[in-house]
Amino acid sequence: MNIPTDSDTPAHGHEGREVSALKEAQSPSSKSVTFGPDKPLMLDAGVELSPFSIAYETYGTLNEDRSNAILVFHALTGDQYAASPSPVTGKMGWWSTMIGPGKPIDTNRYFVICSNVLGGCSGSTGPASINPQTGKVYGLDLPVITVPDMVRAQVMLIDHLGIDTLFSVIGGSMGGMQAMQWAAEYSSRVNTAILIATASHHSSQNIAFYEVGRQAVMADPEWQRGRYHDHGVTPRKGLSVARMAAHVTYMSEQSLQSKFGRALQNSDEKAFSFDAEFQIESYLHHQGMTFVDRFDANSYLYVTRAMDYFDLAADHNGQLAKAFMNTETRFCVVSFTSDWHFPTAASRHIVHALNAAGASVSFVEIESDKGHDAFLLEEPEFFDAINGFLHSADRELELSKAARDNKETGA
Amino acid sequence: MNIPTDSDTPAHGHEGREVSALKEAQSPSSKSVTFGPDKPLMLDAGVELSPFSIAYETYGTLNEDRSNAILVFHALTGDQYAASPSPVTGKMGWWSTMIGPGKPIDTNRYFVICSNVLGGCSGSTGPASINPQTGKVYGLDLPVITVPDMVRAQVMLIDHLGIDTLFSVIGGSMGGMQAMQWAAEYSSRVNTAILIATASHHSSQNIAFYEVGRQAVMADPEWQRGRYHDHGVTPRKGLSVARMAAHVTYMSEQSLQSKFGRALQNSDEKAFSFDAEFQIESYLHHQGMTFVDRFDANSYLYVTRAMDYFDLAADHNGQLAKAFMNTETRFCVVSFTSDWHFPTAASRHIVHALNAAGASVSFVEIESDKGHDAFLLEEPEFFDAINGFLHSADRELELSKAARDNKETGA
Repeated sequence: MNIPTDSDTPAHGHEGREVSALKEAQSPSSKSVTFGPDKPLMLDAGVELSPFSIAYETYGTLNEDRSNAILVFHALTGDQYAASPSPVTGKMGWWSTMIGPGKPIDTNRYFVICSNVLGGCSGSTGPASINPQTGKVYGLDLPVITVPDMVRAQVMLIDHLGIDTLFSVIGGSMGGMQAMQWAAEYSSRVNTAILIATASHHSSQNIAFYEVGRQAVMADPEWQRGRYHDHGVTPRKGLSVARMAAHVTYMSEQSLQSKFGRALQNSDEKAFSFDAEFQIESYLHHQGMTFVDRFDANSYLYVTRAMDYFDLAADHNGQLAKAFMNTETRFCVVSFTSDWHFPTAASRHIVHALNAAGASVSFVEIESDKGHDAFLLEEPEFFDAINGFLHSADRELELSKAARDNKETGA
Repeated sequence: MNIPTDSDTPAHGHEGREVSALKEAQSPSSKSVTFGPDKPLMLDAGVELSPFSIAYETYGTLNEDRSNAILVFHALTGDQYAASPSPVTGKMGWWSTMIGPGKPIDTNRYFVICSNVLGGCSGSTGPASINPQTGKVYGLDLPVITVPDMVRAQVMLIDHLGIDTLFSVIGGSMGGMQAMQWAAEYSSRVNTAILIATASHHSSQNIAFYEVGRQAVMADPEWQRGRYHDHGVTPRKGLSVARMAAHVTYMSEQSLQSKFGRALQNSDEKAFSFDAEFQIESYLHHQGMTFVDRFDANSYLYVTRAMDYFDLAADHNGQLAKAFMNTETRFCVVSFTSDWHFPTAASRHIVHALNAAGASVSFVEIESDKGHDAFLLEEPEFFDAINGFLHSADRELELSKAARDNKETGA
């Protein structure tokens, strides 16, 4: 695959660059951009990362005035294939019910961009990438990545695509953290932000569960202190346990109960064994086993760590409202009643801060028994909320644009 | 240590035996009883277990008419040292705040017995015991043990001690399951039953979390398919991960937040590493590491499996109330507001069944932010409830005994 570096394109602001960037965005020759030594990324860890790549996918068409772009963010184990089949699993994109022609995020109307996060393992630079200084896989030699680092890399991607202002930034879970970070740091470039099933920081319990997962990975002798790539092995068992532990937190007690209850796997009779006896056990085994085929164990450490570190209030003297002072971004905050991983209280905390900052915010708590996973599922009320918010924001922006145009032309 | 087998003592009912049993119970020559080939235990798995041992501790003095005995049950990782120092850790008993002279379970008044469960690893027969047929450690060759199996073994211990009727059976979590099983199957031998922070069955979520733990143990190559004893190793890392995962479910989100929050371990500055960065992480590591020093990994599999299998309603045609029909046992059910491992709803379910069965039941939901762990902690309202219930049951039994005595003497 021919990967053009950002340095190959003319500098930002030149007409020639703008045209080529628009062409690149409308019909990308490649779904990855590499930023060379002239565009290093200063990481929160205090180290420069260079070169680095960001892999992305786009859906729909960027309009002439580049005002219809929506940046969608994936969660912990997601990738850039939000609305197209994953080349790894062959499965439809993780948000293909949400994004597409006539869908809540309507690609007949919007140009949707989704990139793989820095630290991920689906084409963007992460711990499984080659460290140019050693010619070997980074492993734990990659500096720790933070959510703000991920967002800084996305800003460079958006610049590369020649887009100044995003119509919306949208994400659930860790995707919501990225959306929040965008809205906080790049408010003038973000018209609307949709924060779904997310939190302004990980609670102690969130950190605890992810630490259990990380310990499971690191307990696997095949992890080899992070250098498993060099040894041609993978800590499959450890990563599988990590995934199982996390997966339980993504489902509600009710959804586990109604989906599996105490149903036995193979018969009506107890087997009195330690094999998968209950259906919930074999479901979890399946979740664990399929996960290790598509996800890098070190990436799991990096991305969960990024979530643990995220604390938007702490970055603003402990006051979340300060992160949103004087914002003109319109917000939509969505939570799900049965989500105990990022419960409604965490969303309410964000809403309070937005209100305190005088921001425009709609808050919707969706009735659902699907737990945290609800944000990835087809929940009609949820879809209506997203669609309705985008539509109304769209109309209002059109109106204010028309008002501006009228003023400018003296009409 | 000289371990008398139950067969050494004269048959039940003989005066001589009764005297020696009383003496044995009042001043035990040994804290373990082994039931020989003449007293096999028929396990739910359909296999006879023989010989087998039950290790126990006692506190207080059995009165002359043997009416003041309380059987206390430990939870998953507990042992018989409820109110005395553990010889393994040297720490005070896990319920030493609850049991003792002048304490809620007052040893000036009651004779308290606590035995290690079958399948455990503190003296009772479990997977770390020697299989007499092979001369080697059982490992997974020990049949799967159930809560009813544990209780059947306890019944044999109580018989051995010459006690017909227990003034009370009391336990939290898995201890509550045993108390329930006693009350359901041996109602005439149980005056009162106190069920604390427990459930009549594991929910799908309960099974899921324990399966994560079991998978963590079995993923450890040192587990050696359960034969680690033969190889002189232990699956320390796997068992430690299992304990960490379980421990998070024992605490409430609030207690984790107020105890640790997002406080960093070593400094005010982020270390940007994968070591224990947050205090909650180092706390969990400590929980994991100290646990492996005192608990057998295979026992962890057996005892969690016993809890998964427990389903008192299923044993009574799916109707929990049937388990308690015509019971004369007086019940006290206690739950804690922030317990999400065995939430109040699970206790309420038991209370409904008891009411449907016409049983006498007091139900107390204790306001606490300590989560499931609250039942092991000094919670004044909780202690008052236990003490009050025992006192009132005690008074009522005295009164009914007095009424009976009066009737018999014609007064």
